[in-house]
Amino acid sequence: MAERRKLRMGLVGGGPGAFIGPVHRIAAELDGRCELVAGAFSQSAERSRAAGAAFGIDPARAYASYGEMIEAERKRNDGIDFVVITTPNHLHLPIALAAMKAGIPVMSDKPATATYTEALELEKAVRGSGLPYGLTHTYAGYAMVREARAMCAAGKLGALRKVAVEYLQGWLSRPLETAGHKQAEWRSDPARNGPGGAIGDIGTHAFHLLEYISGLKVTAINATLRTVVPWRKLDDDCNAFVRMNNGAAGTLACSQVAAGELNEMRVRIYGETGSIEWRQQDPNRLIVKWLDGPEEIHHAAAGYLGRDALAVARVPAGHPEGYLEAFAVLYREFADALLEWKKGNPQPLPATLPGIEAGVRGMRFIERVIESNRIAGWVEF
Amino acid sequence: MAERRKLRMGLVGGGPGAFIGPVHRIAAELDGRCELVAGAFSQSAERSRAAGAAFGIDPARAYASYGEMIEAERKRNDGIDFVVITTPNHLHLPIALAAMKAGIPVMSDKPATATYTEALELEKAVRGSGLPYGLTHTYAGYAMVREARAMCAAGKLGALRKVAVEYLQGWLSRPLETAGHKQAEWRSDPARNGPGGAIGDIGTHAFHLLEYISGLKVTAINATLRTVVPWRKLDDDCNAFVRMNNGAAGTLACSQVAAGELNEMRVRIYGETGSIEWRQQDPNRLIVKWLDGPEEIHHAAAGYLGRDALAVARVPAGHPEGYLEAFAVLYREFADALLEWKKGNPQPLPATLPGIEAGVRGMRFIERVIESNRIAGWVEF
Amino acid sequence: MAERRKLRMGLVGGGPGAFIGPVHRIAAELDGRCELVAGAFSQSAERSRAAGAAFGIDPARAYASYGEMIEAERKRNDGIDFVVITTPNHLHLPIALAAMKAGIPVMSDKPATATYTEALELEKAVRGSGLPYGLTHTYAGYAMVREARAMCAAGKLGALRKVAVEYLQGWLSRPLETAGHKQAEWRSDPARNGPGGAIGDIGTHAFHLLEYISGLKVTAINATLRTVVPWRKLDDDCNAFVRMNNGAAGTLACSQVAAGELNEMRVRIYGETGSIEWRQQDPNRLIVKWLDGPEEIHHAAAGYLGRDALAVARVPAGHPEGYLEAFAVLYREFADALLEWKKGNPQPLPATLPGIEAGVRGMRFIERVIESNRIAGWVEF
Amino acid sequence: MAERRKLRMGLVGGGPGAFIGPVHRIAAELDGRCELVAGAFSQSAERSRAAGAAFGIDPARAYASYGEMIEAERKRNDGIDFVVITTPNHLHLPIALAAMKAGIPVMSDKPATATYTEALELEKAVRGSGLPYGLTHTYAGYAMVREARAMCAAGKLGALRKVAVEYLQGWLSRPLETAGHKQAEWRSDPARNGPGGAIGDIGTHAFHLLEYISGLKVTAINATLRTVVPWRKLDDDCNAFVRMNNGAAGTLACSQVAAGELNEMRVRIYGETGSIEWRQQDPNRLIVKWLDGPEEIHHAAAGYLGRDALAVARVPAGHPEGYLEAFAVLYREFADALLEWKKGNPQPLPATLPGIEAGVRGMRFIERVIESNRIAGWVEF
Repeated sequence: MAERRKLRMGLVGGGPGAFIGPVHRIAAELDGRCELVAGAFSQSAERSRAAGAAFGIDPARAYASYGEMIEAERKRNDGIDFVVITTPNHLHLPIALAAMKAGIPVMSDKPATATYTEALELEKAVRGSGLPYGLTHTYAGYAMVREARAMCAAGKLGALRKVAVEYLQGWLSRPLETAGHKQAEWRSDPARNGPGGAIGDIGTHAFHLLEYISGLKVTAINATLRTVVPWRKLDDDCNAFVRMNNGAAGTLACSQVAAGELNEMRVRIYGETGSIEWRQQDPNRLIVKWLDGPEEIHHAAAGYLGRDALAVARVPAGHPEGYLEAFAVLYREFADALLEWKKGNPQPLPATLPGIEAGVRGMRFIERVIESNRIAGWVEF
Repeated sequence: MAERRKLRMGLVGGGPGAFIGPVHRIAAELDGRCELVAGAFSQSAERSRAAGAAFGIDPARAYASYGEMIEAERKRNDGIDFVVITTPNHLHLPIALAAMKAGIPVMSDKPATATYTEALELEKAVRGSGLPYGLTHTYAGYAMVREARAMCAAGKLGALRKVAVEYLQGWLSRPLETAGHKQAEWRSDPARNGPGGAIGDIGTHAFHLLEYISGLKVTAINATLRTVVPWRKLDDDCNAFVRMNNGAAGTLACSQVAAGELNEMRVRIYGETGSIEWRQQDPNRLIVKWLDGPEEIHHAAAGYLGRDALAVARVPAGHPEGYLEAFAVLYREFADALLEWKKGNPQPLPATLPGIEAGVRGMRFIERVIESNRIAGWVEF
Repeated sequence: MAERRKLRMGLVGGGPGAFIGPVHRIAAELDGRCELVAGAFSQSAERSRAAGAAFGIDPARAYASYGEMIEAERKRNDGIDFVVITTPNHLHLPIALAAMKAGIPVMSDKPATATYTEALELEKAVRGSGLPYGLTHTYAGYAMVREARAMCAAGKLGALRKVAVEYLQGWLSRPLETAGHKQAEWRSDPARNGPGGAIGDIGTHAFHLLEYISGLKVTAINATLRTVVPWRKLDDDCNAFVRMNNGAAGTLACSQVAAGELNEMRVRIYGETGSIEWRQQDPNRLIVKWLDGPEEIHHAAAGYLGRDALAVARVPAGHPEGYLEAFAVLYREFADALLEWKKGNPQPLPATLPGIEAGVRGMRFIERVIESNRIAGWVEF
Repeated sequence: MAERRKLRMGLVGGGPGAFIGPVHRIAAELDGRCELVAGAFSQSAERSRAAGAAFGIDPARAYASYGEMIEAERKRNDGIDFVVITTPNHLHLPIALAAMKAGIPVMSDKPATATYTEALELEKAVRGSGLPYGLTHTYAGYAMVREARAMCAAGKLGALRKVAVEYLQGWLSRPLETAGHKQAEWRSDPARNGPGGAIGDIGTHAFHLLEYISGLKVTAINATLRTVVPWRKLDDDCNAFVRMNNGAAGTLACSQVAAGELNEMRVRIYGETGSIEWRQQDPNRLIVKWLDGPEEIHHAAAGYLGRDALAVARVPAGHPEGYLEAFAVLYREFADALLEWKKGNPQPLPATLPGIEAGVRGMRFIERVIESNRIAGWVEF
């Protein structure tokens, strides 16, 4: 193990009541490669200071806006090494652009932007800047997702034929957005969230994981959207058929009105000779079913796993790792790439870490689903 | 318990190598209400005799054809009380018609006929004859399916919003029909099987269970069919969107090329306040998830279940019942109805027992799926 | 398949309210080898007739006592081929002796007798008579129990080191025996049940399955008994250490006051290189865990199983078989052996079918557990 | 959220190849209350420096011995606030004594010491010093363990009757200690590990969790130890009966030769009206079984949980937390107590955080198990 200093991160969002901001802080620091040193945690200067105090950072570095933060930090010798974006979606693009304009790399929560058009603009900016840009599609950080991905890539299942991915939650079964629930509020507001409801919030995760694990690309989609809860402004339930670039086909479903489901993301991939199944709520196990042999359960951190899965194990098999650890894997990879970049080795981000390409595809997914639903039929991807 | 004599059954099909014929024999006799006494087990007289001997019946009652059986049995004082049809699909209609013409009730394996047109003809004949006609949609006989059905009917989940049913097998991942596999052979032959492949063989089960449990009717369907294994003549994989008559919507999937799956039928129904999930491979448990409370597992034969589920329990909770017992429940209900009918009380079959209406809907399902696939869009049901 | 006539069985016990009598009827007839034709279903002539009518047998063959049944049936040309004993335990010995004295083979529910002394007497009688005697340790009939047994015998797990078997129920958590519950009543009465409470009713099953699967013999036991529910006359909870004849060791537990458990029998066997786990409530799966490879789930009826497991499969993999089917396997094996015996080929019962040796060991188990508990220490077996 | 500075920790142990040292670093820092600033990571100065560099700390604070660290750090204005002990067991006592002598609080890995005598000495020192002392019985940090504990305390299950706890691993099925495996090496060496093998390493966890969840105390134990792998110097397998202070009784098992098990800790507690089951490998679910109602699964972070469980949730229900998060809960509680102590409010540690009392009981457990095994019978606790 070589010596290293911790990379300094500046967080946008994550003020009082926020869910995902503190998660980013934990995830970034977990492997000891990053530390939170600055933030624009809230649009209220007072609340930003309060959040900064709670995070234990220097009060002078709790800013009232991301612009102020970027301006001030770039002048410091010990200024931030990268910006983390955890705001509602409509702010993702302006923050990312401002950071990159100041030469600061970006780690962003998903989806990349609020609209597909914005995503294309962001992509251009990222490619133009040459700056590292990471996207926290958390589930890509799970060890057994990486094992599944490696198995598909190695052809262990034969040619892939059939896919089925679903991401089901029930928490929006009631109209929480009209009951003062902060998370539900902005997610249900097209102006802050963008045009995709459940499909943007969780469908993009399902879509990303489908392509990430299978190694395939969606080439056409036929989606049907519903808004089940009356008066809601955005979709809360989606079913879709997908066709993949190798001829495989299948389904993608997401819902936030699946009453009783907590966070049920499940991916199944079927090949000629076997299949795999992974569930986010049971993340340390990968189920492998063979056409001609016993069903298998592959356990995280077990010695028989492949290199990619073992590379992200922190504790021995049988000691569960969870959501925060998966998140932290992405930060670890981002930090390692960032260090190289700072040394003047601007290699591309590792293929295991979602970046701007995944971001653009995710926004394209939202756009295509909406279009498919509009015409009630298939659309090319 | 009142005295009763066993009803005498004559089986068509079930010769050497058959899977479902012997299952019908076990199921019919399990609750002591029926006994196999005659059969046209094979189109070869010799093989029919051999099968009859194996079943332990009177050699004189092992016939070379169903026509012969019906003719001979109607003349006996101790002739058969009903005919059981377990042949390939194309024979379902002629056998049923012949039996009914001879005034003999019918218990038929599914699907009811080979085509939708035939189903309409059969329906007319059944209604015209006034004879009991039962259809062995086996899964309707499971205790926990009945509990699920009762919960939906009682509104325990609130208004139903979302459905997801799937029936996945992997055994046709290879072209078994060209390798001398008898079951695969006729199922892959449109002439004997009818126009639906996986959708006919197992999709009809999924469709039936969806309507049976939810108490809803499918009003529109958008299906996409595939034939994944090269040269196969019929579909082996299907994904469909469905709309229900109360405004709920969801998906129906079936596949026989889901490598690694054995017999994975799973039904999920989501209401406003909770959801249920039932898996055929774990049939004695019904999973109930609430929006606001702990997940529950309801166990077969437990005292807290409703009347319908407890009515079909034979052993105490914790002692698993399986496929044969579910099958036998249908025979028990059929036999009880038949006895009433023989006493001159021609009441309709109990609502829990699938009959000709379910048969027609199942064939309509096949027809509609094929049409939807042809136009690549929604069709009314 | 060769022709055969059904063996005629006469049932002792199984009158109104009985649980296990009807189960024996179903199990015996399920594979078409036996049929119930006579019975002494109750000690009340009237109730015996009522039960006989419900079973659909000839009223003349519903007897008021087992003695009467044996006497009458031996004189008939179509008399019973064997007697089935499903009474409370204290009657097992006299009924078996009476049957054997009349030259009639016996299939008995477990435990073999009410006391160990009686078991030795029965063993002597069985061996002296040369008659087939089977004991329905039901769980020995499950396909995956047989697979587990075959794996141990073949050394698949390496030398066996550690065992853990438990059988937990909760239904006697309350003093049902004082509340008019028939099943609880006689089981809690030493005069009818014998000296072992939970250890006799379910502990014997656990003990049998341990030896049956592992192929080992218990050589010493250290047991601690409790009567948790006040005023109960017999034990309702037991924990024991066991030593096996190859040096392995482990635990055996049974309880009927494990509130919330239904019928939780679980057997785990650990060898040098792997282990197996089987649960009665999930009987179609055998979990196999390897020291150096993925965990496996072996499914009933799957092609990769061994001969013994496949021999008892009736339906394809993925179609669950349950308690009644396991029970029926024992009857099938008994019937096949009985037919050979009737042909004058008095071969021993197959090793897979529990008989008098298992019966004696089970009663010895009860006796040794009580003695160990009395001295609060180890006893040789 | 009030402002706070991070508490500074000095780690003893955790050098190259260590498992538990890095885990302590992650756990301590996860909730942002502590930071690693110093360490005596190895007895080799060079390796200690290398580890310090890998951890990213100031090279001047990577010491060659714990004595040196304590000496140097106490003189700094920004010296460590507490010492963390993660060495082999025989060093726990001297390090803790040295820290406390210097007025520095201690967080120690379990077991507290190498022997029971040492534990008594440590207890005296802790009580004499008035310094906070925490013991990382990790599993006490899981949300659902706390829910289970609260349910028992609230009498939700009625009076407790029966307990069953087991902790099974397979990794020592082979003699790894003779193959250069560092973790196996010191654990198998009585001089460094103390007299308990599996019972010390994992049995103490099982014992602690049993008392922690049930709220009961073990009053007597009857244990049988085995050393299954030839030539091993310490026990690798243990089965024990336990009696609890309320009259309940049950079993405690631990093994490191249960081939195929990864880290299978399972606790079951049975009361008059229901029972609970928790498995470390599925930590976000608590199974609750009722005598008279459906089985329930309580999910971590769900709104219906009690205060103690919700207090430690970091992410919404359905997002798994794991081993590191449980570990971090202990550090959070320790840090909060330490801050109060530093403010001059020397309150006792919260009851949810294991301390010296748990440490002494754990060492007593090892001593009593060995004594019970020696006399092959019951010993008072």
